[in-house]
Amino acid sequence: MAEIEIRSRQKCFGGWLTYARHESATTGTAMGLSVFEPPDHSDGDSPLVTWLSGLTCTEENFTTKAGAYGTAAELGLMVAAPDTSPRGEGVADDEAYDLGQGAGFYLTATREPWAEHYKMDAYVTGEFRDMIGAEFGGDLARHGLFGHSMGGHGALSLGLKNPDSYRSLSAFSPIVAPMHCPWGRKAFSAYLGEDREAWKTYDSCEIVSGRKKPAPEILIDVGLDDPFLHEQLMPERFEAACEAAGQPLVLRRQQGYDHSYFFIASFIADHLRHHARQIV
Amino acid sequence: MAEIEIRSRQKCFGGWLTYARHESATTGTAMGLSVFEPPDHSDGDSPLVTWLSGLTCTEENFTTKAGAYGTAAELGLMVAAPDTSPRGEGVADDEAYDLGQGAGFYLTATREPWAEHYKMDAYVTGEFRDMIGAEFGGDLARHGLFGHSMGGHGALSLGLKNPDSYRSLSAFSPIVAPMHCPWGRKAFSAYLGEDREAWKTYDSCEIVSGRKKPAPEILIDVGLDDPFLHEQLMPERFEAACEAAGQPLVLRRQQGYDHSYFFIASFIADHLRHHARQIV
Repeated sequence: MAEIEIRSRQKCFGGWLTYARHESATTGTAMGLSVFEPPDHSDGDSPLVTWLSGLTCTEENFTTKAGAYGTAAELGLMVAAPDTSPRGEGVADDEAYDLGQGAGFYLTATREPWAEHYKMDAYVTGEFRDMIGAEFGGDLARHGLFGHSMGGHGALSLGLKNPDSYRSLSAFSPIVAPMHCPWGRKAFSAYLGEDREAWKTYDSCEIVSGRKKPAPEILIDVGLDDPFLHEQLMPERFEAACEAAGQPLVLRRQQGYDHSYFFIASFIADHLRHHARQIV
Repeated sequence: MAEIEIRSRQKCFGGWLTYARHESATTGTAMGLSVFEPPDHSDGDSPLVTWLSGLTCTEENFTTKAGAYGTAAELGLMVAAPDTSPRGEGVADDEAYDLGQGAGFYLTATREPWAEHYKMDAYVTGEFRDMIGAEFGGDLARHGLFGHSMGGHGALSLGLKNPDSYRSLSAFSPIVAPMHCPWGRKAFSAYLGEDREAWKTYDSCEIVSGRKKPAPEILIDVGLDDPFLHEQLMPERFEAACEAAGQPLVLRRQQGYDHSYFFIASFIADHLRHHARQIV
């Protein structure tokens, strides 16, 4: 495994927050990441939750805005966050905020110019996960996955496809049916082309419908004043798919909340407790 | 009072966070601000704490990074934050991060080119305070003041000079002796000239020494890994001044913490409870 460059390390709620970067063999680029180690982690092997961020984000938005580390410290949870895409010169990009750098959509691109570096699903579930275990001492046998918006799509789709890796799942404002919303159709067309069978492998509604046995209960929060609720998020589609598939789901529709990190911060403690109940 | 322009309003921990701006008669500029109204504030007259930020900050850093609103909601506290200086075209500035826009130092400048707009002490204790009471329903009879670094200087100096306005005080990493540290000497020289008697009126160590009766117990947190601790902050000077003046002080030296908002977030709940105990 390539060496990890520690960029900063700061004490936070009795634990330690580290920003780091490493040369990823998966994406072929340098990848940034953040890891919170809870106070008693010095012995290693803390239960672990990985956060996947949304469009335009890096590994940093969650660290500064979510207000997660106080509760994570109480619960003894490590919290890791990768960047949302490969970046840098020589990495394909687009002027739009919802394609290219900052918009990796947690999939393996098969179309040019994206295919060379855009392999975020393989990165998150493989190299990144292994590194958090090996280099930071996260306990990969007790690993949860959560995220926001595009990252909520990532958490649900990757979590449902990799039940042996992730024992708990939750999401804020997730894109649950990317095949049927503008963000998802744009990204899938660009990264995957027009092969609808390929699209299905990254669509959480399709994935949950195809599972043989249900995952542990999933927690989802959506804000009823989220401007993307009806056109992009459509949580009712995932609710129906879970109902049909026998997948336990707690979908909370939060009155008055929007799509922002103020919404996330308001309920992040509930999500951390949800993961702790299932993995600790 | 000039009209307030509401720029955004977002639900957060059951309360509401508002970003606003108004044309200030005091500074002669538009001033940005943020206000968190706790969940039960719809009846008005919530106890209030005002946060003063440090160098380079605006009214926004605290809102996104401090993680204060969960505890504020529990305690029923309104939390208001002004910008750290006048801004805009026609407002004097300097290329350095520690002078001019973003570095108002909570004083009334008497030297050119600063004197026209730089009146942050009068703004915070007068127009801003009145506006939070009149327009947002903060209870000015139950008002606390806190801040970070340059804003810790602002909170201690303005709070100690205006005991009828502020009933509780606390600070993170405050500049307590600006006459004796590089940040303070640079700012005071520029804004006030070389009149050391004028400097004393803005130096918390001098102010606390000159008070006739002590203020309620002050809470200060400093991080022992703060790179500014010894050259800029010198909390031992304030500790000695309080001791000599009979001013109750709890000065906590926090092992391993630095100057960042991760340090602030780690202890913000303690500060909010400190204010609630004294004002609610």
